[in-house]
Amino acid sequence: MKRPWQGQVEPPLLTTVPRHDPHNPLCPGATRANGEVNPHYEGTFLFDNDFPALQPDAPSPGSSDHPLFQAEAARGVCKVMCFHPWSDVTLPLMSVPEIRAVVDAWASVTEELGAQYPWVQIFENKGAMMGCSNPHPHCQVWASSFLPDVAQREERSQRAYQSQHGEPLLMEYGRQELLRKDRLVLTSEHWLVLVPFWAVWPFQTLLLPRRHVLRLPELTLAERDDLASIMKKLLTKYDNLFETSFPYSMGWHGAPMGSEAGANWDHWQLHAHYYPPLLRSATVRKFMVGYEMLAQAQRDLTPEQVWTWSTLGPWVPFSLLFP
Amino acid sequence: MKRPWQGQVEPPLLTTVPRHDPHNPLCPGATRANGEVNPHYEGTFLFDNDFPALQPDAPSPGSSDHPLFQAEAARGVCKVMCFHPWSDVTLPLMSVPEIRAVVDAWASVTEELGAQYPWVQIFENKGAMMGCSNPHPHCQVWASSFLPDVAQREERSQRAYQSQHGEPLLMEYGRQELLRKDRLVLTSEHWLVLVPFWAVWPFQTLLLPRRHVLRLPELTLAERDDLASIMKKLLTKYDNLFETSFPYSMGWHGAPMGSEAGANWDHWQLHAHYYPPLLRSATVRKFMVGYEMLAQAQRDLTPEQVWTWSTLGPWVPFSLLFP
Ligand SMILES: O=P(O)(O)O[C@H]1O[C@H](CO)[C@@H](O)[C@H](O)[C@H]1O
Ligand SMILES: O=P(O)(O)O[C@H]1O[C@H](CO)[C@@H](O)[C@H](O)[C@H]1O
Repeated sequence: MKRPWQGQVEPPLLTTVPRHDPHNPLCPGATRANGEVNPHYEGTFLFDNDFPALQPDAPSPGSSDHPLFQAEAARGVCKVMCFHPWSDVTLPLMSVPEIRAVVDAWASVTEELGAQYPWVQIFENKGAMMGCSNPHPHCQVWASSFLPDVAQREERSQRAYQSQHGEPLLMEYGRQELLRKDRLVLTSEHWLVLVPFWAVWPFQTLLLPRRHVLRLPELTLAERDDLASIMKKLLTKYDNLFETSFPYSMGWHGAPMGSEAGANWDHWQLHAHYYPPLLRSATVRKFMVGYEMLAQAQRDLTPEQVWTWSTLGPWVPFSLLFP
Repeated sequence: MKRPWQGQVEPPLLTTVPRHDPHNPLCPGATRANGEVNPHYEGTFLFDNDFPALQPDAPSPGSSDHPLFQAEAARGVCKVMCFHPWSDVTLPLMSVPEIRAVVDAWASVTEELGAQYPWVQIFENKGAMMGCSNPHPHCQVWASSFLPDVAQREERSQRAYQSQHGEPLLMEYGRQELLRKDRLVLTSEHWLVLVPFWAVWPFQTLLLPRRHVLRLPELTLAERDDLASIMKKLLTKYDNLFETSFPYSMGWHGAPMGSEAGANWDHWQLHAHYYPPLLRSATVRKFMVGYEMLAQAQRDLTPEQVWTWSTLGPWVPFSLLFP
């Protein structure tokens, strides 16, 4: 953290997003790339991505007899979910009931796509720094015919822990963090937020239910309300840290679904990861480059230092600063 | 690739790097953060990083009795290697003999640090987009007391392939790419450059010797000369692609060293990875965000499409355009 920084400084945040732009394909009433007109939606709005990376009928690449040239079709669907009709709000600026509507929409889309696909990846890229190509508040949902790499790694680790220790890895992990208190950022009746022991991004957090829950649709009404409220707190804390609309990529991981949904997945625990890129200020980010890409992630701040930081600073909802 | 892009556009390249800046700590004769004065070096120049991420005497974190809270000391050294006394040249703008001097310096530092450490990671972050904090042409060398994550994965894959198929994975892989010709970018007497079958970055390449070589110091004089020349070709091709000083992170991987250097590492093959971030133009990059961080890398262009692209375009050394 003492290194002189003559490197890249990010372009300043575009703060002047109009509330409604009829040319923005995510806005109510706008025409999308495929010619469809969006409804005048008033809450969340889910639609098929007009430029899907995964398609239900992707052709098979054909078989290869060589072990080094094996490929398989990656099939699936890609959806976009707008969080709110207004372009100039973000989740932390939304009310708790509005965030609660997003939680419900996440649960339903998981249920709907999980009926067919083994993995439903909900993720939000927030901010231009995280490759977000449209400022209107939204997330994406990509369902796939296969367990993606990260899902496979989490499956292996959680399965191995359960078989060695007889309980779900993340249940024991959450309990330990509650006892140790070194990395806890927020707690509520039903949820925990902490900087995980294994974090690689400076302000990375893990959001965990206290109860053993496999997937989003299983959350009770009380857990959903409480999730909306702890998300609002976490994201406001993030915004306050560098007094900016804090960029991140986040996403949910839960037990696999699809035709195998009925198998025993008790070693899984539902959770969300938050991966924010900022390191020193609103415009100086952490670069995961050379050593990180070729060898191993290395941290500039320990999780415990970040925790100290997360407890300081103004606890003013950023919406007051950034109306 | 058809998606509309309203996302981040990178700041334009700083083209006005002065050849010599007495305040730049990487320049000949400049004073560094620790008060040392650089020699008036005329070729490459290797020195200890004044802000090392790894230190030889890092304290042990102490033992934990809980399986989820295991930590170990990461010990090592971090060095910086300047490629050339001038700040306004990059490797592709250097002459073949000048690049050859860099190859020799890479081989010696690997030998020197590999006497003590099991892993010597040489890497170059080129360009502000790749977190490079100083425009003077340089790379870094981080030697560690442990095999980093990526090294461990390559160790496992290469060992498994050798035990199943009786030959090194990358020897067979290079041979196959020479036969198939779908992804070959450049070939020379002693080297191959190809877009690997498993590439995740759009213009990612793999640089491989044709002969079975475990580590950089084993390269013959002819292989070193030829490496300098194919590197100049590859990096000029990169610069020409979007008519910019092409950013990337690159690094070398070879068999582990240190006290285990004498073990059997015949399943290893020396290679370099190039990971360039650009996708559409000199200012629009690929973002490895949401889906990639939480699920799996996905490509916007297939390796075979990239290959087609790499054979097109002006074959003018970029130095003529950018003197
Ligand atoms: O060592 P530098 O050039 O200061 O820093 C750069 O390379 C390091 C190693 O890949 C990264 O950890 C830093 O994030 C990056 O900015
Ligand atoms: O889908 P978008 O918003 O166009 O694109 C964004 O998210 C995708 C999924 O993480 C990434 O592959 C793209 O690089 C990124 O720019």
